Amino acid sequence: MRVGIVGAYSTGYELRSEREAWELLEEAVRGALNSVEKGISGEDIDLVIVSNFSDRFGGILHTVPYALSLLGRTSAKGVRVENACASGGTALYLAWSMARAGLARNVLVVGFEKMSHQPTAAEANEVLMAAGHPEEILAGAPFVSLYAMIAKAYMDRYGATEEDLALVAVKNHENGLRNPLAAMRRKVTVEDVLKSPYVSWPLKLYDSSLISDGAAAVVVSAEPRRFTDAPVYIEGMGLAHDTPGIFERPDITELRAMRFAAEEAFRISGLGVKDVHILEVHDAFTIAELIAYEMLGLAKRGEAAKLLREGIVMFGGEKPVNPSGGLKSKGHPIGATGVGMAAEIFWQLRGEAGSRQVEGAERGLMENHGGTGGTVAVAVFSR
Amino acid sequence: MRVGIVGAYSTGYELRSEREAWELLEEAVRGALNSVEKGISGEDIDLVIVSNFSDRFGGILHTVPYALSLLGRTSAKGVRVENACASGGTALYLAWSMARAGLARNVLVVGFEKMSHQPTAAEANEVLMAAGHPEEILAGAPFVSLYAMIAKAYMDRYGATEEDLALVAVKNHENGLRNPLAAMRRKVTVEDVLKSPYVSWPLKLYDSSLISDGAAAVVVSAEPRRFTDAPVYIEGMGLAHDTPGIFERPDITELRAMRFAAEEAFRISGLGVKDVHILEVHDAFTIAELIAYEMLGLAKRGEAAKLLREGIVMFGGEKPVNPSGGLKSKGHPIGATGVGMAAEIFWQLRGEAGSRQVEGAERGLMENHGGTGGTVAVAVFSR
Repeated sequence: MRVGIVGAYSTGYELRSEREAWELLEEAVRGALNSVEKGISGEDIDLVIVSNFSDRFGGILHTVPYALSLLGRTSAKGVRVENACASGGTALYLAWSMARAGLARNVLVVGFEKMSHQPTAAEANEVLMAAGHPEEILAGAPFVSLYAMIAKAYMDRYGATEEDLALVAVKNHENGLRNPLAAMRRKVTVEDVLKSPYVSWPLKLYDSSLISDGAAAVVVSAEPRRFTDAPVYIEGMGLAHDTPGIFERPDITELRAMRFAAEEAFRISGLGVKDVHILEVHDAFTIAELIAYEMLGLAKRGEAAKLLREGIVMFGGEKPVNPSGGLKSKGHPIGATGVGMAAEIFWQLRGEAGSRQVEGAERGLMENHGGTGGTVAVAVFSR
Repeated sequence: MRVGIVGAYSTGYELRSEREAWELLEEAVRGALNSVEKGISGEDIDLVIVSNFSDRFGGILHTVPYALSLLGRTSAKGVRVENACASGGTALYLAWSMARAGLARNVLVVGFEKMSHQPTAAEANEVLMAAGHPEEILAGAPFVSLYAMIAKAYMDRYGATEEDLALVAVKNHENGLRNPLAAMRRKVTVEDVLKSPYVSWPLKLYDSSLISDGAAAVVVSAEPRRFTDAPVYIEGMGLAHDTPGIFERPDITELRAMRFAAEEAFRISGLGVKDVHILEVHDAFTIAELIAYEMLGLAKRGEAAKLLREGIVMFGGEKPVNPSGGLKSKGHPIGATGVGMAAEIFWQLRGEAGSRQVEGAERGLMENHGGTGGTVAVAVFSR
């Protein structure tokens, strides 16, 4: 059973949307249905999966009946899922596996988050911290500090520098300039990043992704050619987990579950990282993108930054990573993020990515993770 | 594929637990695994489904890696689900359907909620309201008011009385006296209920279920005889939805999705309401239990209260409903509720329900709903 994406939509991501969370959700649902070339009705959808992190970001729960009501009266079923920042990837995994197993024919996957529902970044951060290990929560360690410890360990072991981290931010902000959906279209230089204030040493403001608002949706189908002549197939997926706390891991310079999820997606798809032309990876912090290169097999351990210095992962390079601008420039409205990655790859593989189009992109990969890699979803797509 | 429950556990439900949410979760996970007669290890579990309503009730998100860590290092996958008060039933539905389709062999379903995380009932109520239709939230209508409108319409149409509603509370509190897990073991009389203060006319304090804390877990298996000689089979389930808002429905005296979910469960199981010996239904408010009798086919429209007056649904009657004490006496820790219902029926069908044991209980039914019936899960079990 070859399951494919037949429609996709994303709201623009914004730092502070003037709209309510349910309005963002509604725009994404309607947009995804309307994007299906041969037409799809609410009655064709038999499963709705909503991805959302916290009702403290948006004020709404029990969003499945609301999403269903936007489809008109149907006999569809639905569930909202949450796996921290990997909620979207988890939703896609569930849609893909259930469609593949015959539990659903056509699945609407919609993710949303309105993080500006919290008045300040400090308060938003408090919500995010709930995704840590209970002992990390009690210790008061925000994710930027947990990733800072990972970055410190990585720098110590491999001699990586703060400039190496900065190169990720520079690339992704450069890419985001080409993406009208990106929340922060602003060019930054290595110097800008290095001069930005430390949030948790060695991570600075510009090493961190954006607290933002947005929604994205894709339609996953077990009968893709019924709805479009140009589906994007989900050739394989992996979903893997690690300990909730980084203090429980033997080596914090790796994100094991990322490797496990990628191995699973590669095994199922029969494809490898060498076969993909474009990657969207979870750069919640710059260090995470560097480690992703290594976990996904793009670089040897400790050699991630070479890919940036040699231009390989740049737009126009051999393996562009985050041509969308990534979480860094595009934004990271938690529940939407993984779904938005799938939407981006859908557009790229169909040649619909406008000025950020990667030439010759026929296969793509997304990596979406939650917490400090306690949950990772990886998908491999082909047109 | 006949999928069965092979182990179950519930913490005691409490009005205000002294323990943290993750401690309740841990007790339930360990308890369910330890309850499996022939033994089960963390490595046998390939899917974990966590049911939880809001991180405002417990302060934790991304609970899947935490639950997995309690199983020891495994290659299991997991997802947290939320469908308001039907989160537990939805989790069970997903476990059953995925095990049945071969997507998992053994699934740990665990639900928890620590509602006393909010300091007052008013603040807890504000969290609960997020499960309403956006317009109901904006209007400031709590669920007790929405159910009060349903009760008013039902009373107007069928001549039902406040005493009819009170009989539900009296029965369930009487039943709860026999349940050591119940949060409020207190006998109440019809007079007590009628004299309790109105919360939203015609619903009074004693027409309402309890804000409470607790966790419950069940192990669902596609190979039940491997783990116990006395599994409780899930013979069929239904999951159905209705409009998120009651103002969108043609007739608010019925909860349509309850009928649809029951019809689906009956069709799949080949069993009917006549075949079950015990029912656990979602008496979040007394009116909901009366309407459940009618939607499930126990009573004709408008005749629900007869079942109470004639003793049919009483402990010792022909069709005992909520021998556990129901949400009314046992408590309603949102994410745990549906999972706890399945645990109760597991014990009843195995003859392990102690002084609340229903003699001759061989088949049972659970009905768990969210919001004002925007999501309903129904399951039919047999031993």
